[in-house]
Formats: sequence, structure tokens, C-alpha cells
Amino acid sequence: MRFTAHTIANFLGGTVEGNSEVEVTGVSKIEEGVSGTLSFLANPKYENYLYTTKSSIVLVNQELKLNKPVGCTIVRVDDAYKAFASLLELYQQSKSEPVGIDKMSSIDDTAQIGENVYIGTFSVISKNAKIGNNVKIYPQVYIGNNVVVDDFTILYSGVKIYEDCKIGKNCVIHSGVVLGADGFGFAPQENDEHKKVPQVGNVVIEDYVEIGSNTTIDRATMGSTIIRKGAKLDNLIQIAHNVEIGERTFIAAQTGVAGSTKIGKNCLVGGQVGFSGHIQIADEVKIGAQSGIQSSIKEKGAVLQGAPAISLMNFQKSTIVFKSLPELRQEIIRLRNEVEQLKKRT
Amino acid sequence: MRFTAHTIANFLGGTVEGNSEVEVTGVSKIEEGVSGTLSFLANPKYENYLYTTKSSIVLVNQELKLNKPVGCTIVRVDDAYKAFASLLELYQQSKSEPVGIDKMSSIDDTAQIGENVYIGTFSVISKNAKIGNNVKIYPQVYIGNNVVVDDFTILYSGVKIYEDCKIGKNCVIHSGVVLGADGFGFAPQENDEHKKVPQVGNVVIEDYVEIGSNTTIDRATMGSTIIRKGAKLDNLIQIAHNVEIGERTFIAAQTGVAGSTKIGKNCLVGGQVGFSGHIQIADEVKIGAQSGIQSSIKEKGAVLQGAPAISLMNFQKSTIVFKSLPELRQEIIRLRNEVEQLKKRT
Amino acid sequence: MRFTAHTIANFLGGTVEGNSEVEVTGVSKIEEGVSGTLSFLANPKYENYLYTTKSSIVLVNQELKLNKPVGCTIVRVDDAYKAFASLLELYQQSKSEPVGIDKMSSIDDTAQIGENVYIGTFSVISKNAKIGNNVKIYPQVYIGNNVVVDDFTILYSGVKIYEDCKIGKNCVIHSGVVLGADGFGFAPQENDEHKKVPQVGNVVIEDYVEIGSNTTIDRATMGSTIIRKGAKLDNLIQIAHNVEIGERTFIAAQTGVAGSTKIGKNCLVGGQVGFSGHIQIADEVKIGAQSGIQSSIKEKGAVLQGAPAISLMNFQKSTIVFKSLPELRQEIIRLRNEVEQLKKRT
Repeated sequence: MRFTAHTIANFLGGTVEGNSEVEVTGVSKIEEGVSGTLSFLANPKYENYLYTTKSSIVLVNQELKLNKPVGCTIVRVDDAYKAFASLLELYQQSKSEPVGIDKMSSIDDTAQIGENVYIGTFSVISKNAKIGNNVKIYPQVYIGNNVVVDDFTILYSGVKIYEDCKIGKNCVIHSGVVLGADGFGFAPQENDEHKKVPQVGNVVIEDYVEIGSNTTIDRATMGSTIIRKGAKLDNLIQIAHNVEIGERTFIAAQTGVAGSTKIGKNCLVGGQVGFSGHIQIADEVKIGAQSGIQSSIKEKGAVLQGAPAISLMNFQKSTIVFKSLPELRQEIIRLRNEVEQLKKRT
Repeated sequence: MRFTAHTIANFLGGTVEGNSEVEVTGVSKIEEGVSGTLSFLANPKYENYLYTTKSSIVLVNQELKLNKPVGCTIVRVDDAYKAFASLLELYQQSKSEPVGIDKMSSIDDTAQIGENVYIGTFSVISKNAKIGNNVKIYPQVYIGNNVVVDDFTILYSGVKIYEDCKIGKNCVIHSGVVLGADGFGFAPQENDEHKKVPQVGNVVIEDYVEIGSNTTIDRATMGSTIIRKGAKLDNLIQIAHNVEIGERTFIAAQTGVAGSTKIGKNCLVGGQVGFSGHIQIADEVKIGAQSGIQSSIKEKGAVLQGAPAISLMNFQKSTIVFKSLPELRQEIIRLRNEVEQLKKRT
Repeated sequence: MRFTAHTIANFLGGTVEGNSEVEVTGVSKIEEGVSGTLSFLANPKYENYLYTTKSSIVLVNQELKLNKPVGCTIVRVDDAYKAFASLLELYQQSKSEPVGIDKMSSIDDTAQIGENVYIGTFSVISKNAKIGNNVKIYPQVYIGNNVVVDDFTILYSGVKIYEDCKIGKNCVIHSGVVLGADGFGFAPQENDEHKKVPQVGNVVIEDYVEIGSNTTIDRATMGSTIIRKGAKLDNLIQIAHNVEIGERTFIAAQTGVAGSTKIGKNCLVGGQVGFSGHIQIADEVKIGAQSGIQSSIKEKGAVLQGAPAISLMNFQKSTIVFKSLPELRQEIIRLRNEVEQLKKRT
């Protein structure tokens, strides 16, 4: 794909300064610009890069005043960031989208397949599964019995979905994600052995959810493990049985949520956080990376960090003192000696 | 599958109160009960739910006295929890089990395949592999050369087993598990490069082990990385080369065990715990979530938490003081000033 | 494969003491020796095992003096460790290497495939992908459009590589690794929803890199996420978009690196470490397991631990005091009382 500055300016309703015939074939950040790519300048902090960048074309805001000569072609638009974002989307959409059902896929006769679907090579669709319209299933995906995948959802290569799980519309599930494996439940027996507790529930993923690579979400013991509408989960996250993640909550990579915990709406959870089981987290809570959440958080919008987690401000102050604990102990020993001296003297 | 209260009571040797013809098609917790499902009430704490649940049938203990009218059909049995568990198992067993060898699997001529085996679509069984009787191998599994999988073991979709590994009887290995990849071993070279140390051992999984989704267990450098009989590993766990996990030890999700460490029998390890390499952990040790274990634990049954881990009680007390460290420091500064005043005065 | 002590001594230029016809079929550590295996003794600390080991053959250094009778056959060589390592490599190389393109793989007509390549069963090579010479692609691998895999690289079963990523020469990528999934980027919208930020960059893996099982490396938003030459990543690691890992840096399992962070050369990073986004780490930095790195580290060769990380020595001293915090607080309360008494008295 090749575009000239002229074509881009036309599409965006902008104006060209410099060589309007220069071509780009990709995009780059202005500070990492390379020849043949398009960049944008929105934040004035980055203005200096405009005069040194190797990008061939840079989108800038209408009102920007140039303070030095530039080596690139400039396209002026109303909002450089929005214009760039709309070009990126166009670029994404213009990519040749996979379509059709590969003849080396395996689709059970009882499965229902919607219209305009892509099913890649070596993917398996099991009994009574129901695939909506415009769904894209990349190669080597496994869809168990009775699974539902609703319209416009994308399952990347190697996703595994156990039987009875339900995926909503417009979801994106990345490679290596496992949905619906058995929860970690075992009942102790008299003979010192453990018996597996049957896990007969499922996983429900609502609409507009994105799930990162190799994340695992276990099926409920009974009922459903639920990821609510618009939630976004990063890579390598563990969601245990009967957990519920609220609408539009974001969770960063490698976080783990133990069984039956419910996290509210619009929460922001950092990476490598651990949640104990059977607790509730209020809406709009923000939790710093590597925190340990051992009990319910009832205050909406609370901001916490640490293991066990305390208020962010408390955590920051305490960790500063933590560094000087050896000196603090020395000072206490000195005080003790001096107090003993004083006691003798008085 | 549909059962009436009458059928269920007959099967369990219980008695019906209410409409014995009401039908259920699934199960639910009594507090989340929905019409058409079966629940149970064992813990008296939950009795209130009995009068409000939407479940159609509830199993209760023989001696339970009703304090209010109920909307559901009741089935009285000797032990409601056990009765429910036995129904769940029946339900699991009644599901149509996959059988047979899919014609779109790839099985090397030199592999030995037992009786009554399921091998799913797009699975690969390599040279000299040995699959026992009643083994279930779901689609897209990879079994390397010389691998042994013993009777009644289940490998879910996408399990990958490198050559020479051995899996015992009655194991359950969930999707995305990788067994037998190379341990992380590199020898520094004179030219500032690192040479890979050949990893010529294997992984041995004994009987009745369950391993959660996307967990990784590396092969030994020499000898075997071993998961002993009845151990249960949750999701996304890392087990390094030459590690040994004792019988019936439970490890929660996202824990990591570094090379050559040996964990005893009947231990309970929380989630996101890290173990250093080359250490030994005694039997029956309990370790709290997110702990860091840097040295051997010799005391049988020790209960530890923290990073580095200390006794649970010590950890709890110290974390309480941690929160008030800024105030503690202030108090020390005040004491210092007052002691200086006193020294002047005396 | 069977070798006599005689054959081994001949190959290594060593001398046999004991039965030169004894055979071995595998290797073991001297302290875990079993009959029919070969071990080595290099470290004098382990000499005692020489007299009790069940290994059939032990390689020892030329100058070693036996202090007791031995049950095994001894082969004397100049350097027992190096000799053993060279045998291990020979053993590895002697294994039958997979070759050829399996007829049940799926290779797009536009893909370019080098010479002497192995492509395993049910693997997928997509449009315009370019596979170098002597590459080994095990079963069930997915190679997206335009991906480049250079000479002598090995991709184990189940690796997934999204479109446009580039893998260098002599790399080893283990099962379940996902390269090039979308970075975790979403822009808030006015209607309380989040819009996905298109991720149009890629992942670049340079030469001689090894990546452990189920590790995930996200593609850059723009430009490239880069793993430099000779870097080694363990299992279950998360590398976010636009991260750069320096040459020959080693990262242990379950560590996470947030977006746009750059780690220098020759660093050693322990397991379960977390790096915040947008920070820089100098060369040769050593970071202890479970640390949290929240800001840039400018000092070359710094040694850090803790969350947030401080100098290793500081961390060790502070954690010792942490254990005694409850006693410390008691002592402060006692001091306060005594100072109050003194104030009254003077």
C-alpha cells in the first residue's frame, strides 16, 4: 500500500506544505521516524522532533507555527491525533481480511455457522456449537460442544474454548487463551486422597470484551464465571471459577483473581496483582501493580497499593520509611541508651 | 437431560415434599437459583435462601425444620451435600463421552495405542509413543517421540508434550499445558556469548495429578522433573528443570518454582508464590499467596507468608506496623528532641 | 543408543579404569546415578559420591586420586566437565532430527520456503511468509502473513506468530509462545466506552534468542517490540508493546515488562519481577526475584531488590528489621513512657 501526501491531504481535508508527491508505505512515531513513513505531531512537547525526524510526511495541527525549516512534507489538519488515528483504522481495514471456511477445518454436522464467517485451517467446531455472523476464527482454534460465539467476534489462532461457554458480540480473544477449563476444586477424602469436585458451570464473556494472549478463565463450579461488557484483560491473567469482572474494568498482565471474587465496574487493576477468593471490589477502584488484595474493598473509587494493599499515599510514605529501617533501629537503640543514662542521673 | 423430583428422590432414596413432577435440567447454588435447576442446602447459614430461591428443587437434610413456606419442591435425604455431589458426578458421567480415533489425527506407525481410546481431530502422536487404555486425547494435542500416557488420563485440547516425558494414570492435563520444554540453562562462553546446556532429561507426572491450563513444566537437565502422585497444580504455574513436587501437594495459580527445588508432601501453596532454586520444603508446609521462599523450610507443617517469607503471625503483625511507619518515625523524631531537651536540663 | 566405556574413552582421548565393556544408555548426575548411565565428577565437593554412585561409568579429571575403592568404571580425561558436555551435545545431535514437509501441513502458495526445512503436521504457513534454510517448524505452529523466520531457527509445537513479525537466525521458540498479539491499548471515548488503538507495528526477534514456553510478546503500536541478539527469556513472561530487551539479557520466568520500557544489555532479571512502562534500565543491571521496578535505573551494573526496588544490601537489612517491627514499636512505646516520667522528674 502506497499513499502520496497529496492523497492523504485530500482524504483528511488538509493542506500540503512541501513535496506533495512523496510516498509513504507505513507509520512511525515522530521520534523514531524513518523514511517512507507517516508520523503525527499533536503534543507541543515533541515539536523539536519535527525538525529532525526522518519521517517523510508529518500530520500537524492547523495552527502550528514552524520555528525552523523541516525536511519532511507537512500535512495540516484540524486535529493531527484524530486524523492519524482515522488513517490507522483505514489502514487496518484495508488489510485483506481472511474469509471463507477452510476445507481443512473440522465442523460438526450439528454446528450452526452464520454468514460471512472465516474458519481457518485445522480449527475444530464441535457438536451443537453456534457461530454468529461475521465471526473470524483463525487456524487451530478449538470450539467445544454447545459453545456460542456471537457476531463480529474474532478468535485468534490457538484459542481453546471448552464446552458450554458463551462468547458475546464484537469480542477479540487472542492466541493461547483458554476459556472454560475446570476450576481448581478438590474435596478432601477420608483416605488422605482428594476427589475432584465436578465443575458443571461455564464461562460467559459479554460483548466488546478483549482478552490477551495465554490468559486463562476457568468455568464455574455451578453457574457462570462472567466477564462483563467492555472489560479488557491483558495477557497471562488467571481468572478462577465463579469470578465476575465488571463492565469496562481493565486488568493488566499476569494478575490473578481467586475463586468467587467479584470486581466492580470501571476498575483499573495493575499488572501482577493478586486477589483472594470470595471478596467484593467496589466500582472505579484503582489498584497498583503487584498489590495483594486480601479483603473486600467497599469504597467506590479507592486507590490502593501494596501487599496487603493500603491507600496509595500510605503505601508510598511507608515504603520510604522501609528503606531507612536500619537507621531507624539504630536511632532507637541510641535513644534507649540515652534514656538509661538520664534515668541514672535524675 | 431432564429429571423430575420423583426420579431424583428415587435415585437418592429420599422423600419428596411438594410437586414431585417438577423437572430440572441443570444445577445452581441456592443463593443464585434459577427456575429449572436443582440446588442443595447443607449449611444452616444459608437456610434463608431456601424460602426465596428460584431453584425448582432443593435437596435438604432429613432433619431440617421448615420455618416458612417454600416455593420449591423439597427432596429430603440423609446428607444433602453428599447427595448433591453424587448427582453431579452422575451428571458428568452421563455426558456423551468422546470416543474413537479421528481420521484427521496423525498417528505414527510405531506408536502403540491402547483400547477404548479417544484421539481427537488434528492431534499428533509421534514415534514410539505409548498411549494406554481409556485415554482421552482432545483435538490439537501434540505428543512427542517416546512419550508415555498411561490409562484413563485426559489431555485437553492443545496440550503439548515434548519427547520422552511420562504421564501416569488418571491424570487430567488442561489446555495449553506444556510439558518437557527445555530448562533455562545456558553456560557463559569466553566470547561473551552463552551456550545452551543440553537438556537431556524428561518430565515424569505420576498418577492422579491434575495440571491447570497454560502451566509449564520444564524437562530436567539430566534425570527427571517429577510431579508426585495426587499433586494438583492450578493454571499458569511455572515448574523449572529438576524440580520435584511431593504427593498430594496443592499449588495455586501463577506460582513459580525455580530449578532443582524439592517441595514435600501435602503442602498447600498459595497463588503467585515464588520459590528460589535448589531449596527443600518439608511436608505439610502452608505458604500464603505472593510469598517469596528464598531458603529451605525444614519444619514440617510450618505456616509462612511474606517475601522473604516469615511465620504467618509475624508477617501479620509486621504488616500492621508497616502501615504506621510514617507515624512511628515522627514519634522517634519527637523522642529525640525531648531527650535532647532532658539532657540539657539535667 | 548404547556406548561402552571403551568407546567413550576412545572418543574423548581418555583412559579406562575398570570394566571397559560396561555399557550406558543415558546420563545422570553422580549423586542421583543409576545403573546404565554415565556421570561426571568435576567439583571435588562431590568426590564422596564417586564411591557410592550407581552410575556405570564416571568421567573424572586426569589428576584425581581415588581414596576408596569404586564400584563404577572410571574414564580419566583432561577436563571431566567439558568432556561430559561434549558427549551431551553429541547425544543431542545423534537424535533423529525431523525433516521434510508434512503433507498434512498448510502452506500458502505465496510463501517462500528455504532448503532442508522441517514443517510438521497441521502447521500453517500464511501468505508471503518467508521461511529460511534449515528451519524446524514442529506440528501445529501458526505463521501469519508476511512473517519471516530466518535460518536454523526452531519453532516448537503450538507456537503462534501474528502477521508481519520477524524472527532471526538460530532462535529457539518453545511451545505455546505467542508473538505479535495486539498490545494492550485502548483510548477512552466520550460515551464511557473504550476504542481499541490500532496496533500496526510488529515484533522483531534478533539472532540467537531463546524464548520459553507460553511467553507472550505483544506487537508494537507503531514500530517494533524488539528482543535483541542473544537474549534469553524463560517461561510465562509478558513483554508488552514497544518494549526493547537488550543483547544477552537473561530474564527468568513469570516476569512482566510494561509498555515502551527498554532494558539494557547483559542484564540479569529474576523471576516474577515487574517493570513499569516507559522506563530505561542501564546495562548489566541485576534485579532480584519478585522485585518491582517503577523508575529508570541509570547506574550500570546496579544490583537491586524489593518492590519498589532498592539496593540489594539495603533491601536485606530492611527486611531483617521488618521482621522485628512489632518489638520495635513496643520499644518506642516504652521509651515514650520513660521520657514522660523523666520530664515530670526534672
